[in-house]
Amino acid sequence: MKLKFIVPIITDEDLGPMEERVGNYVSESTEVHVESIPYGSVSNESFLDEAVNTPSVIKMAGKAERDGYDGVFIECMLDLGLEAVREVVDIPVVGPGRTSILCAVDLADNFSIITELEHTNVSFLHLVRSLGLESKLASIRSIEMPVLELNNRSRLLQSAMEAAETAVIEDGAHSLILGCTRMVGVETEMRNRLKQKGYHVPLIYGVPLTLRYLENLINSELTQSKRTYRTPPEKKNTLFDRI
Amino acid sequence: MKLKFIVPIITDEDLGPMEERVGNYVSESTEVHVESIPYGSVSNESFLDEAVNTPSVIKMAGKAERDGYDGVFIECMLDLGLEAVREVVDIPVVGPGRTSILCAVDLADNFSIITELEHTNVSFLHLVRSLGLESKLASIRSIEMPVLELNNRSRLLQSAMEAAETAVIEDGAHSLILGCTRMVGVETEMRNRLKQKGYHVPLIYGVPLTLRYLENLINSELTQSKRTYRTPPEKKNTLFDRI
Amino acid sequence: MKLKFIVPIITDEDLGPMEERVGNYVSESTEVHVESIPYGSVSNESFLDEAVNTPSVIKMAGKAERDGYDGVFIECMLDLGLEAVREVVDIPVVGPGRTSILCAVDLADNFSIITELEHTNVSFLHLVRSLGLESKLASIRSIEMPVLELNNRSRLLQSAMEAAETAVIEDGAHSLILGCTRMVGVETEMRNRLKQKGYHVPLIYGVPLTLRYLENLINSELTQSKRTYRTPPEKKNTLFDRI
Amino acid sequence: MKLKFIVPIITDEDLGPMEERVGNYVSESTEVHVESIPYGSVSNESFLDEAVNTPSVIKMAGKAERDGYDGVFIECMLDLGLEAVREVVDIPVVGPGRTSILCAVDLADNFSIITELEHTNVSFLHLVRSLGLESKLASIRSIEMPVLELNNRSRLLQSAMEAAETAVIEDGAHSLILGCTRMVGVETEMRNRLKQKGYHVPLIYGVPLTLRYLENLINSELTQSKRTYRTPPEKKNTLFDRI
Amino acid sequence: MKLKFIVPIITDEDLGPMEERVGNYVSESTEVHVESIPYGSVSNESFLDEAVNTPSVIKMAGKAERDGYDGVFIECMLDLGLEAVREVVDIPVVGPGRTSILCAVDLADNFSIITELEHTNVSFLHLVRSLGLESKLASIRSIEMPVLELNNRSRLLQSAMEAAETAVIEDGAHSLILGCTRMVGVETEMRNRLKQKGYHVPLIYGVPLTLRYLENLINSELTQSKRTYRTPPEKKNTLFDRI
Amino acid sequence: MKLKFIVPIITDEDLGPMEERVGNYVSESTEVHVESIPYGSVSNESFLDEAVNTPSVIKMAGKAERDGYDGVFIECMLDLGLEAVREVVDIPVVGPGRTSILCAVDLADNFSIITELEHTNVSFLHLVRSLGLESKLASIRSIEMPVLELNNRSRLLQSAMEAAETAVIEDGAHSLILGCTRMVGVETEMRNRLKQKGYHVPLIYGVPLTLRYLENLINSELTQSKRTYRTPPEKKNTLFDRI
Repeated sequence: MKLKFIVPIITDEDLGPMEERVGNYVSESTEVHVESIPYGSVSNESFLDEAVNTPSVIKMAGKAERDGYDGVFIECMLDLGLEAVREVVDIPVVGPGRTSILCAVDLADNFSIITELEHTNVSFLHLVRSLGLESKLASIRSIEMPVLELNNRSRLLQSAMEAAETAVIEDGAHSLILGCTRMVGVETEMRNRLKQKGYHVPLIYGVPLTLRYLENLINSELTQSKRTYRTPPEKKNTLFDRI
Repeated sequence: MKLKFIVPIITDEDLGPMEERVGNYVSESTEVHVESIPYGSVSNESFLDEAVNTPSVIKMAGKAERDGYDGVFIECMLDLGLEAVREVVDIPVVGPGRTSILCAVDLADNFSIITELEHTNVSFLHLVRSLGLESKLASIRSIEMPVLELNNRSRLLQSAMEAAETAVIEDGAHSLILGCTRMVGVETEMRNRLKQKGYHVPLIYGVPLTLRYLENLINSELTQSKRTYRTPPEKKNTLFDRI
Repeated sequence: MKLKFIVPIITDEDLGPMEERVGNYVSESTEVHVESIPYGSVSNESFLDEAVNTPSVIKMAGKAERDGYDGVFIECMLDLGLEAVREVVDIPVVGPGRTSILCAVDLADNFSIITELEHTNVSFLHLVRSLGLESKLASIRSIEMPVLELNNRSRLLQSAMEAAETAVIEDGAHSLILGCTRMVGVETEMRNRLKQKGYHVPLIYGVPLTLRYLENLINSELTQSKRTYRTPPEKKNTLFDRI
Repeated sequence: MKLKFIVPIITDEDLGPMEERVGNYVSESTEVHVESIPYGSVSNESFLDEAVNTPSVIKMAGKAERDGYDGVFIECMLDLGLEAVREVVDIPVVGPGRTSILCAVDLADNFSIITELEHTNVSFLHLVRSLGLESKLASIRSIEMPVLELNNRSRLLQSAMEAAETAVIEDGAHSLILGCTRMVGVETEMRNRLKQKGYHVPLIYGVPLTLRYLENLINSELTQSKRTYRTPPEKKNTLFDRI
Repeated sequence: MKLKFIVPIITDEDLGPMEERVGNYVSESTEVHVESIPYGSVSNESFLDEAVNTPSVIKMAGKAERDGYDGVFIECMLDLGLEAVREVVDIPVVGPGRTSILCAVDLADNFSIITELEHTNVSFLHLVRSLGLESKLASIRSIEMPVLELNNRSRLLQSAMEAAETAVIEDGAHSLILGCTRMVGVETEMRNRLKQKGYHVPLIYGVPLTLRYLENLINSELTQSKRTYRTPPEKKNTLFDRI
Repeated sequence: MKLKFIVPIITDEDLGPMEERVGNYVSESTEVHVESIPYGSVSNESFLDEAVNTPSVIKMAGKAERDGYDGVFIECMLDLGLEAVREVVDIPVVGPGRTSILCAVDLADNFSIITELEHTNVSFLHLVRSLGLESKLASIRSIEMPVLELNNRSRLLQSAMEAAETAVIEDGAHSLILGCTRMVGVETEMRNRLKQKGYHVPLIYGVPLTLRYLENLINSELTQSKRTYRTPPEKKNTLFDRI
């Protein structure tokens, strides 16, 4: 099968290494193609970012479906634009935010989310609330590192571990979710440290889990409900001519 | 005071008559300027419409603040783009959807929303849920008239009355909300008919209520919380160069 | 229009200054007449106070309607007796408690209430719960000043600011409500101090907001639902002969 | 022990037969004294009735405590005035409404309430909501017989059975509550008929259950929380001088 | 009447003293017979314990019904196996966990549970949630004493008082529940100490309350709903041949 | 990897065909071993069945872990015994009930469950409630076919389609879950028929989805939280000696 992995920001980054990494998460017979959007902002940290990046994500997902892709992954823990994209295409569209939250609710009685910036906490609360799962949320803890600094792995590791311990000890978290797709490369070390400290709680990093979940959906012949995400009627749309 | 009334669709309609009508809703000393957006789609009936119309609404609201407006009204019962706009400006931004719902919750134990199309019902449910008020929702009833046909007043009146009675009798509604800003001109007749039938329930048409609420906020020196709607950091945004 | 402003306690206070102050909150063409009740207790701090003051409030509101008033305002943040009064009259009846809470839910993701005494916190919780909004309540913080001491403005300012900061910092409040109508005269200074400290959260003082909301309802031809607040049948009532 | 059974309406009825009947519900060593209030209305069907009857109930309960009673029972399924009475006295105060609802929640997954008039359904909903149990409410079904006609036992039996069957079949009720203390004398026959029809659901008539629950509380040395129902401060109260 | 009091663990303890003690909780005409189960584990602290002890509890309750008992009491605050037992028999089956929680919800606005071990807190949360009462739960506080050590009364008293004070002061508890049936003999002293410290909150010890509640149900001709706890069809069951 | 597939009933059925079928759901490198329990009942339709089957499931899962299995699947849509099993082992344990529900919540705004017998509907409600997802449940519809008759495929197909259509049309379901693992072999035909009728809603058959989800968890190095499902202390347990 062939999956489109949409990076919902504008970026000059060479996406080759990312494509290689995420390709390792899936079955050998699955291809993952990574692409960033042409118009929008450089990171997703606000309702504003969501508003300016979503139109390009929709357009890219529509093209992917026409190009024969079997599924779409949107690389943003806030599941940026997911609902609009699910309206526009029939192939399954997944987001690592909701997939991670639902997995946490399976594995534990509650969960905490470790976010990059307090700025995004309201958006995460809205995501949790839209799933009807506010009663399962232990806390949202931010580490106050902007997404563009997250490649400082040692600082990320230290900050994320501090937030994780606070969530477990003070907020009573039974499971933990890394709240940014770019908090990558620290998950294994964090799991080891948590176990050494005696905290046997799942730490969820959403990207591999969600890509495999997308494969699972496709193999199970499942896709989003068209009663929830109804196909919009054809109508004039002058924005798509501009982007 | 000076209010910006944003029509969040693209339209060739002469907005003069609307500006005159809505000007009558407010105090004599208040000016209301009506303007539609330059890029987007012709109506708001889906998550897709919200996605393509919001960027222009944000840009227009930002300009309004810089031009000295005291408040912004977004003419859409789904409160299209409200959250992003509230981030970007400091002046109060209101939407008739949430204002109508909150008024209904004051005046009655529950409410029903009469929508144009079942298509939008999920979006209304999301709006209600985001306010934490799902337990007060009696029902969402659609009349299956696309927004562009709502100017057929006699058909609108009949369909809306049928939906209103169904909501009251079958769903036990204690108050009613007209779910589209363009369902205008039937509210007084509907209130009379409802009373004649012995249904003493409030029927809320959101536009005048919400414009006056915006005046009230400004007079009360109140605006949206910047802890909920945080000012986004300055960053590169290539979409706004295109629209 | 002509509004009845009911002070739901017994008092020897000269109500002239209050009538002058609240008259400034509304349109020039609106008259507000302030009156206190003849029988009851000297303040509203308990379910007992509500029980002994409500009968006189009902009687006074009924008379106001017969005298041609267009609306009734009950001056108590606990919305004392509001539900019974709404049954008895057809003109709109408003309370600053619920109006403030609903406004807070519009402007922010959650709210805290600053009360005079911990004694009343349970009653506020019941008010919030009756609106179905418990999930939006960040906290209720009391300053432990009985209502009759609230005219000590400097102590009130200091205590209320402390409670406000605690609500914002420890409870994560995104908006604040002054929980007593007599906490008047400190709202502007508190807003300034909050901004200086970098807390851009709305601080709601309910009296002006709610009086203008009452005008808005009347102008919008809206009043309480008679399916929620049903007109009681005529029946023998020997209490009203005694008060 | 000695219990005060307050009939919270004005009535010319000879209460002797009632006192004899309810005396049979309790232990031999328990005395139950029945008394109606001096000022108020003739039945409890509205927020207005609650407002005019509660002051006398409070006064009577306070006297009962001073006279050495061990507990107070308020004879109204809406638990009229219960919260204020619980503030004023330290001895346990019970109401058959909440006691019946809590028993239903123990015995079954949900419950329906059979009320005399649709008029009171909102009040019952508020009672259920104040207990946090809205998710357990299957329905509220009214038989449209005013309380003063409930002594027509055969009509009551027929109407209540119809409502009970509707609740079970259409609303999926797993248990049933008779929503008026005066729906007495039909409970055994209704239980038999329900069983004959194959509906093995509990039918709760609250008066005996709640009187025995009051004995249970007293024997268990339990009474209402004074953190929920705080003792009000002494203060001037001119209503009690008039009733 | 004749009640079966099931001790849902295996034990060598002489149950005579317990039978004498619990016999004092009920009416003179009521007999209580105490019996422990033949197969299972020595205490109830985990889902595992519940799984291994429940089969014997079911078998014992079924026999009690056939032997003419009028009701069944399961001695475990987690209401171990209650739902399965209620399916199997028609006589009322009660558990002190749910009975205590429902009583707390009557007497106070919220409650805290004092448990022996943090281990069981998740199970208590599930019990509260199954009753739909999560919004009334102030906290669950454990004293970290395994059940088999609870007969150290002075240590129990000290630890439980500490937990009680923490619940009241830090968690804002308005009522308290002793979370283990074996936390017996300290309830009167704890009530005295709480009052001396000015905390007028009910402290519920569930065993006597629940035994008397069982008598109340039987006298009120009430039992569990067979629509919630349906009689299982006869079918092959090879486990019961082994125990 | 090596997965243990536990059939949590006693059965004489040849499990070979089932092992072959479920082996096709997973990756080539994954082995699935199917085994039924030695002691218990012949189907899972009541709390009683859960009680008598769970002990053997626990014992079998514990042995699977000691034998080097990587994960456990319990073949029952009620997730029979899942919580106790998750305490006892460290390898991931999954149930198709919760996995299907969480998938439905991702793909649609709400869901309906199609059960074999109304008997089990209460248990499904408890499962949904334990996940905190009651607000997403559209309905539970039963087809009244005992599990042992489900191999009548044509009757199953007809009955399940009727229930599915009722759920979509009358209950407004946006997604559907087959509520029994033995409702197998009709899912593809049902999906086709639903689409032909214009109902574009996901129909979830839980077994393949959940087996692949178990693989996903193992590949993602995730397992149940040991703060939710705590490892029980070693203690005497005489039931396991008997089975």
